[in-house]
Amino acid sequence: MTRHYTLTISCPDRAGIIAAVSGFIAQHGGFIVEASYHTELEAQRFFMRQEIRADSLPFEVDELGRRFAALAEEFEMNWQLSDSKLNKRLVILVSKQDHCLDDLLHRWRSGELQVDIPCVISNHEDLRSFVEWHGIPFIHIPMQEDKTAAFEQIAALFEQHRGDTLVLARFMQILPPFLCQRYSGRIINIHHSFLPSFVGARPYHQAYQRGVKLIGATCHYVTDELDAGPIIEQDTVRIDHGDTVDDLVRYGRDIEKTVLARGLRYHVEDRVLVCGNKTIVFK
Amino acid sequence: MTRHYTLTISCPDRAGIIAAVSGFIAQHGGFIVEASYHTELEAQRFFMRQEIRADSLPFEVDELGRRFAALAEEFEMNWQLSDSKLNKRLVILVSKQDHCLDDLLHRWRSGELQVDIPCVISNHEDLRSFVEWHGIPFIHIPMQEDKTAAFEQIAALFEQHRGDTLVLARFMQILPPFLCQRYSGRIINIHHSFLPSFVGARPYHQAYQRGVKLIGATCHYVTDELDAGPIIEQDTVRIDHGDTVDDLVRYGRDIEKTVLARGLRYHVEDRVLVCGNKTIVFK
Amino acid sequence: MTRHYTLTISCPDRAGIIAAVSGFIAQHGGFIVEASYHTELEAQRFFMRQEIRADSLPFEVDELGRRFAALAEEFEMNWQLSDSKLNKRLVILVSKQDHCLDDLLHRWRSGELQVDIPCVISNHEDLRSFVEWHGIPFIHIPMQEDKTAAFEQIAALFEQHRGDTLVLARFMQILPPFLCQRYSGRIINIHHSFLPSFVGARPYHQAYQRGVKLIGATCHYVTDELDAGPIIEQDTVRIDHGDTVDDLVRYGRDIEKTVLARGLRYHVEDRVLVCGNKTIVFK
Amino acid sequence: MTRHYTLTISCPDRAGIIAAVSGFIAQHGGFIVEASYHTELEAQRFFMRQEIRADSLPFEVDELGRRFAALAEEFEMNWQLSDSKLNKRLVILVSKQDHCLDDLLHRWRSGELQVDIPCVISNHEDLRSFVEWHGIPFIHIPMQEDKTAAFEQIAALFEQHRGDTLVLARFMQILPPFLCQRYSGRIINIHHSFLPSFVGARPYHQAYQRGVKLIGATCHYVTDELDAGPIIEQDTVRIDHGDTVDDLVRYGRDIEKTVLARGLRYHVEDRVLVCGNKTIVFK
Repeated sequence: MTRHYTLTISCPDRAGIIAAVSGFIAQHGGFIVEASYHTELEAQRFFMRQEIRADSLPFEVDELGRRFAALAEEFEMNWQLSDSKLNKRLVILVSKQDHCLDDLLHRWRSGELQVDIPCVISNHEDLRSFVEWHGIPFIHIPMQEDKTAAFEQIAALFEQHRGDTLVLARFMQILPPFLCQRYSGRIINIHHSFLPSFVGARPYHQAYQRGVKLIGATCHYVTDELDAGPIIEQDTVRIDHGDTVDDLVRYGRDIEKTVLARGLRYHVEDRVLVCGNKTIVFK
Repeated sequence: MTRHYTLTISCPDRAGIIAAVSGFIAQHGGFIVEASYHTELEAQRFFMRQEIRADSLPFEVDELGRRFAALAEEFEMNWQLSDSKLNKRLVILVSKQDHCLDDLLHRWRSGELQVDIPCVISNHEDLRSFVEWHGIPFIHIPMQEDKTAAFEQIAALFEQHRGDTLVLARFMQILPPFLCQRYSGRIINIHHSFLPSFVGARPYHQAYQRGVKLIGATCHYVTDELDAGPIIEQDTVRIDHGDTVDDLVRYGRDIEKTVLARGLRYHVEDRVLVCGNKTIVFK
Repeated sequence: MTRHYTLTISCPDRAGIIAAVSGFIAQHGGFIVEASYHTELEAQRFFMRQEIRADSLPFEVDELGRRFAALAEEFEMNWQLSDSKLNKRLVILVSKQDHCLDDLLHRWRSGELQVDIPCVISNHEDLRSFVEWHGIPFIHIPMQEDKTAAFEQIAALFEQHRGDTLVLARFMQILPPFLCQRYSGRIINIHHSFLPSFVGARPYHQAYQRGVKLIGATCHYVTDELDAGPIIEQDTVRIDHGDTVDDLVRYGRDIEKTVLARGLRYHVEDRVLVCGNKTIVFK
Repeated sequence: MTRHYTLTISCPDRAGIIAAVSGFIAQHGGFIVEASYHTELEAQRFFMRQEIRADSLPFEVDELGRRFAALAEEFEMNWQLSDSKLNKRLVILVSKQDHCLDDLLHRWRSGELQVDIPCVISNHEDLRSFVEWHGIPFIHIPMQEDKTAAFEQIAALFEQHRGDTLVLARFMQILPPFLCQRYSGRIINIHHSFLPSFVGARPYHQAYQRGVKLIGATCHYVTDELDAGPIIEQDTVRIDHGDTVDDLVRYGRDIEKTVLARGLRYHVEDRVLVCGNKTIVFK
């Protein structure tokens, strides 16, 4: 993969946005590798993502940003510019279950998921050895009496390790509102049901009791309303009457892994833009 | 397909049921074509379905039933015996949307769905010509002031046409409790969402607002709790941020058709057994 | 749906194409509703599709084309401009099986598939009544001794009815090379296997013999090499050891219908661009 | 999971087999937990799998086998009896790619895959540290000049470790016929295409060139005809024109893992019976 800059934009919809932005890029000789657009009709907002080859521009990413700022102001844009050379930094939260963690670490060590993982934090000791085998620091923060203090500690670690994104890889604790708000759009959870079905605890038991014929998993941004944040990715898998709750849990692990990995990749590659409680995902 | 008898059984679970039933069949020379079993652990009930080649037995289906009754009593069985020579009789209820009706009538006229359709009933006139082209009587029952009288009329028609099953093929009226109870386990609906998500009206709008990444359809038995009866079959299809509500409706039509057709076929072939609010589907 | 013009382009890849085209559109006040881009790396060609709201431009589609021609020449573009007000004209070829035809005609009469169908041509009489119920002329062209003459007659009818696209909706005859070449990129077939598996006759039998666990269907442009043209759309469905060839045929009908309908919609909406033996499908 | 015995049978089809076998089991008080049947019509053979609760029988599995032998002979059965207490022993062969190995070892260490893994053998050193972290011996057997000697060594290790099944988890060497024949029905491979499409080398490149819209993976028993053995499990995933060969490889890894894990689980639980070049999989 050659180095590229990714420009994401959202702004009020009107004619001429694509022309203005692509004209600006072309004027500096920029070579667009990938371009995606979307208009959210109800919100009357326009969304855009462009990948530009770094070596096609005569200056660095900071200079690109400076020059773009005037145009951005004219169109009232929220915008962001990232450089593929700089990896996103993921801080991962886990409890005892390791299937999502195992999957993410494998994708990381095989080079498929191009991120840095400065540390893994857990409220249990169980997964220390596995994480440390990867050369990644493992930090144990118990969640007993004073949960607020524990979450403050997590926030401090996230800052200290300059985390971009907090990934809840089957972390079995509910995040307090102050954290959800402080890192809005930067905390990603995998929920083990096809939301909005089976919100809350023990979704596989709920699914079993209801007798559904498919179960699912949902990757979403965390907000302070439980399991109600913007959905990034979902999938389902077929079950039947012969499957016990244990079977559902087993099938579920496979889609949880896949759905989290896909959602996280979209996020890391700046493919996800949020509009109200919905996401635009430029695959 | 050679003629066969289908025996379905449910009874308290214990050792020796399969041996007793298959011993009984073998003793009369019966040739089993297909056999399925399931134990519902929580309910401690055993479920069973067997297809026996008609020409392997020295007597007719009535005599088979008479001889089986003693064994059935010993094991406290609920049981049912059907003859593939006798088609189930479906009475179909529709409103204005015709995609499910078109699909069912095509499967019927191609011989794929082996049933009789004595009549189609609708609260609108729109689909008369299409139904009558098939040589099937079309009965218009308006649903305006006195809905109870209208539903009484539907029940009377169902009886008069000796209906086995009432199929709601996108019928946009809520059935009154007396009908749901009278024909418990015999009324099949297609709901245009992946239940239990988006119960009630306008599920595609609800799905659009929630920003889900898959939409679904659910075929279920109708009970007097809205959209909460035993689920027979479900499926989902992927959507994305670019899809409008109209797109969802369009994708939805395709899975509604497929899911209703599959669920109905399982029902018609006596593959669906109900246990509480869940179904066992012996595919 | 408001009226729109669709501009599709393919040209040698280089920097500045998007800027030039979107600049041209913006200069005339054109409002872009949907835009898609793709670079085919091996072929070093760029592909593009834009939908422009008709009422945002001060002139008609012909004038838009005239003004665009100079730009198109500069970039050595192959390009096409269509007007959503003008329906594509499909001539459908069928034999005896009617599931794809039924599906297409239902989508047509419900307004989902916005096309004109000037006639349906068949080598059998079986489907006349169904087609004529729709008010569409049905033309019987037997395929016995002189197949070349029959295909010449089909070509003549296609011309006479000003057909844009010839749809083989389970037409069980192999088209002669002269037809494939004359209407290159305009003949669409549905093949009842997941190509390139099981080319040629009786693919469901081939699939059954090989013991595959999924079967599929493929919608593709017809070329003079049998079942080897550019693939537009495919899908698969799960089967198991209990399924007979008849079951495969039955499952297969459902995916054939869906895959043909999807592929045809992409084609009709100018979403399919051909590059060598592959397609770019801007969904 | 309570301990159970699994009895699998194949024999010429005739009336009374189920009655005889279930009668035999019932006569000893055996409690059947799960039962599956299938008749392969062309081959006129009957296939059967039963799980019996160990604690419902008054004797051990050996005695059960001794008593069953007479019945088995009468019906000319091929049969096999296994005890859930005794884990199958898998010897895993890998090269450099570790995604399938990682997936299998995770399922093993989480207890999902109940097997013993006496050793992992590879023609490269790359995966030693990861395997040894699990406490599993890693054996490096280079494949350079004398491949026959190397494969003889693999066979010797398989015997010495009392392997039941040889798993090729993306092992990039073709097994010699003598091994395929010696361990017929006991060597499982994951092939990175939807067989029979794209047999042989570089299937993702082949798929990319052909322009298919789905790619797949196939888990199959290895025979001496390359990629042509009985298929146990397959699956597909959607791709589009924007995906490069690298993207196909990435998507492919996910279905390779899943398909191998599913196929292997069926095999390990004695759910797969072979009939000619096809499999019966009692899920």
